[in-house]
Amino acid sequence: MDIERRLADLGLDLPPAMSSPPGTAIPFSWVRVIGDRALVSGHGAVDPDGAPSGPFGPVPSGVSLEQAQASARRATLAVLASLQVALGDLDRISAWVVVNGFVNADPGYARTTLVMNPCSELLLELFGPDAGSHARTAIGVAALPFDLPVVISAEVALHP
Amino acid sequence: MDIERRLADLGLDLPPAMSSPPGTAIPFSWVRVIGDRALVSGHGAVDPDGAPSGPFGPVPSGVSLEQAQASARRATLAVLASLQVALGDLDRISAWVVVNGFVNADPGYARTTLVMNPCSELLLELFGPDAGSHARTAIGVAALPFDLPVVISAEVALHP
Amino acid sequence: MDIERRLADLGLDLPPAMSSPPGTAIPFSWVRVIGDRALVSGHGAVDPDGAPSGPFGPVPSGVSLEQAQASARRATLAVLASLQVALGDLDRISAWVVVNGFVNADPGYARTTLVMNPCSELLLELFGPDAGSHARTAIGVAALPFDLPVVISAEVALHP
Repeated sequence: MDIERRLADLGLDLPPAMSSPPGTAIPFSWVRVIGDRALVSGHGAVDPDGAPSGPFGPVPSGVSLEQAQASARRATLAVLASLQVALGDLDRISAWVVVNGFVNADPGYARTTLVMNPCSELLLELFGPDAGSHARTAIGVAALPFDLPVVISAEVALHP
Repeated sequence: MDIERRLADLGLDLPPAMSSPPGTAIPFSWVRVIGDRALVSGHGAVDPDGAPSGPFGPVPSGVSLEQAQASARRATLAVLASLQVALGDLDRISAWVVVNGFVNADPGYARTTLVMNPCSELLLELFGPDAGSHARTAIGVAALPFDLPVVISAEVALHP
Repeated sequence: MDIERRLADLGLDLPPAMSSPPGTAIPFSWVRVIGDRALVSGHGAVDPDGAPSGPFGPVPSGVSLEQAQASARRATLAVLASLQVALGDLDRISAWVVVNGFVNADPGYARTTLVMNPCSELLLELFGPDAGSHARTAIGVAALPFDLPVVISAEVALHP
């Protein structure tokens, strides 16, 4: 695999890796590497200047399904940016393990799986059907940091 | 252990293993096996024809505590069905590790642990107190796929 | 490390380890040890008599940000109390891996990371910047057991 070339082939730029959100000290790690596992903190969409990126709000009253899907895809790029910085090279990832999708949702919004599909599809496209596959849970939550529409956390396995 | 015999002794039939929900391509794995771990995606109750199974809605305004508990038990059977297909044999499970219960709940509903107890009790009944025990978190969420009352994800450990 | 001495140096007392919440049988483990990993069930703040500890309710309509932060810190002490009982000695922890913060939040409450910071800061203070660091997700949920303001689950790595 050469994930960075695949990103380029798809015309995708990674955003800046997350640092401290504005006004917040960060007493945790965006990526925690333990043995052959890397655990990824919850990430949302990030602007080119590193700030949380809108549109903001719950789906569907604040953002549309399509906007939430775009936010999920951009959150996935933010996850990849943090992994690239933490691992040095995205090719160190041997397999995706779990992806957790937290969707800022109005009560009873029943389409949270659709919101998360662009995340899963991008991982499959970049890493292929074996390494890119993952267990997934997509739930609708009452509130997310910065009122982001989608936050994604994950676990990946690393080559020894 | 012979989990399939215990299921039969208890008069329990597993539902069909999850495939694509109606109208949704599935870009993830219902069960992801990585080394001696199997990670299970979020599952809800499943009908005999493989469709998400009602009653639907949040507890307590849409479904009662008892209905949500029945949905949690049926979601557990769906988890077992997916594990059986992915592993070939449920006896490959050496231990349950974590169970995450997501309860479709009205704001402030304080009895999410009670909703999830039938899931935990079934696992203990089937796998015994050592292998069946697990860490658990039971939270109330704003929205779940298909407006299911309960979605359950999990991790199990496998015999080498 | 000598975590218990650091707790004493900071003037911190651990609450009693969780047993069954009032009126509820507990069909799960507060801490599940699997190989060199320990998985911690969702814990909230605990009173000296072992009962769930108030104030209760969502942030900000039921409790203030400051009250929720205090509850997060006390939930962290409850996690440590359960780990101490399960492991015998907190020095068996080689590293924190993941911390999941579930904040009982009004819809759209955008400061869930601030609620969870006292948890992360306490872990860093006790275990130091290497062992104490962790991946983290902080989400706002619709409902938590006993209407607690904060519930925290975690995974730690253990010395062999």
